[in-house]
Amino acid sequence: MCHRDAPALTLCAAFAGREDWAKSLRDAGIRVRMHPEELDDLGKVEFAICWQPDAVLLQRCSALKAIQSMGAGVDSILSIPEIPRHVPLLRVIDPLMAERMATWVLWGVINSQRRCDAYAVAQRQRRWGKDIENYRNIDNAELRVGVMGLGVMGGAVADALVKMGYSVSAWTRRRRQRERVLSFDGVGSVKKFASQADVVVCLLPLTHQTKGILNGDLFTALPRGSTIINAARGGHLVEDDLVAALDSGHIASAILDVFEKEPLSEDSPLWNHPSVRIFPHVSSMTNMKTAIDQMLRNRDCILDGRALPEEVVVDWDSGY
Amino acid sequence: MCHRDAPALTLCAAFAGREDWAKSLRDAGIRVRMHPEELDDLGKVEFAICWQPDAVLLQRCSALKAIQSMGAGVDSILSIPEIPRHVPLLRVIDPLMAERMATWVLWGVINSQRRCDAYAVAQRQRRWGKDIENYRNIDNAELRVGVMGLGVMGGAVADALVKMGYSVSAWTRRRRQRERVLSFDGVGSVKKFASQADVVVCLLPLTHQTKGILNGDLFTALPRGSTIINAARGGHLVEDDLVAALDSGHIASAILDVFEKEPLSEDSPLWNHPSVRIFPHVSSMTNMKTAIDQMLRNRDCILDGRALPEEVVVDWDSGY
Repeated sequence: MCHRDAPALTLCAAFAGREDWAKSLRDAGIRVRMHPEELDDLGKVEFAICWQPDAVLLQRCSALKAIQSMGAGVDSILSIPEIPRHVPLLRVIDPLMAERMATWVLWGVINSQRRCDAYAVAQRQRRWGKDIENYRNIDNAELRVGVMGLGVMGGAVADALVKMGYSVSAWTRRRRQRERVLSFDGVGSVKKFASQADVVVCLLPLTHQTKGILNGDLFTALPRGSTIINAARGGHLVEDDLVAALDSGHIASAILDVFEKEPLSEDSPLWNHPSVRIFPHVSSMTNMKTAIDQMLRNRDCILDGRALPEEVVVDWDSGY
Repeated sequence: MCHRDAPALTLCAAFAGREDWAKSLRDAGIRVRMHPEELDDLGKVEFAICWQPDAVLLQRCSALKAIQSMGAGVDSILSIPEIPRHVPLLRVIDPLMAERMATWVLWGVINSQRRCDAYAVAQRQRRWGKDIENYRNIDNAELRVGVMGLGVMGGAVADALVKMGYSVSAWTRRRRQRERVLSFDGVGSVKKFASQADVVVCLLPLTHQTKGILNGDLFTALPRGSTIINAARGGHLVEDDLVAALDSGHIASAILDVFEKEPLSEDSPLWNHPSVRIFPHVSSMTNMKTAIDQMLRNRDCILDGRALPEEVVVDWDSGY
């Protein structure tokens, strides 16, 4: 991949597990600089691979030609106003990540539809849970799953749910159509969308417009007994509103993979809420090998001045 | 549906929940006789709807023209040697039941693939389970799911798994082919089939040939760390062999919906085994409305001498 005589330097910003990434990048022939340890030649960095980057360091990269997020989401970069915005912002679009997400969400939908947690509780009590209402449970075609966001992740999730026979709708900020998916768009239609969703799956990008969108108003608009699945960002969810809606019984269950603060703090009321399932941000882990392959392709395009695939380039203003 | 002047009597045999069924059958215009209470005119019964029937009573139905199972399985009828075999044995083929089964099995496959139970344990300990190996977990195309049986249920399960991108194989007693499914057939190939399956899903009919097929020999042939999903009949599984294979660590987990004795006895070691998930025979409940519609169509065919759909008629000898 490293076809240039003097390979562009790559800045590997701070995040958990970055050593594994740095090793893989170096194995791929990339000159990796890890901050804050190895920042003597920032002026030569042309391509910055980042997750939760340091704005000041990026500002000092005077030769910077692009910022590459290490995942599909870019909110950890967008949330820092000081990050230089004169260069393209790129993300990883990995079909495997979309499949991982679709698989995890499908698990969540079935887990609530088929009362799997209730059977686990019965099992711990050595109780044959035949009393648990399952045989009256609605079949796939009757279960209305509302997906928020139809990007690479949301689109893959919607398609998987359609394949399995669910009734799928979607809410997007801007008008989008997708085969066999009932479309709602615009801020004004959020409640109408919610009112027809037995399960809501959030896969929106986190932007100023979508922050806190899973709030008490939306929960009230949902049919009683619905389920919330959040696999986007913790910032989408107003956690206190969720706990209140669960405690009132209006929302039956929540499956959460992302949190406002990660790791989830030890004193969060979510941990032992009987209607909440918690995952440590694992619904769609970045596949290091395919992600690095794509990052290197992106870098070569940038440095050679070739066009990048449309879905890889993030609009700095809309945030997706 | 009841187009004859003197509707054929229907015998509703003993099983839990039969009152609901009797009511629905009566609502559909059927003259229902429940044993042992209402058996004064057994000689007039032409069509017997049964689950765990009484052989002596059926023998007394001298005008009997068919025996209709209340579900897709017929082993509760086949297991009684005294049941009269001179009439056709019919079962319920409900596309909704196949979809329910496929959905439940898909949940089980993902539940083991994505370590969902391990995250639940971490949650109960208020522990951010980032240490649980998930990101190294194999993707759908790499997970080899082996389906035992390619009947209505097994076929629907195999198709759903293929749709979701899994690598699917199947073992059947007699040769069967299915698109995008690697086929193994015959008793001699069970171990070869097992040796290439990370997850085994049993959906075989219970017959003399398949009883106890999920035994220590099969478990030993599986790759280490595999998962057993049994949604067929308890008689397929040698429970003691499973517990031994789980305790040795050779098998990583089991998801069981059926048991040798149901309800599962309170002192079974399966209840609190950390690697076992127990469901009370709910993977694919019969849908009463669609099942009764089909039973009535079957009855009309039998009484009018018209041919029945091939998959509805069970071969008394092979048991499926």
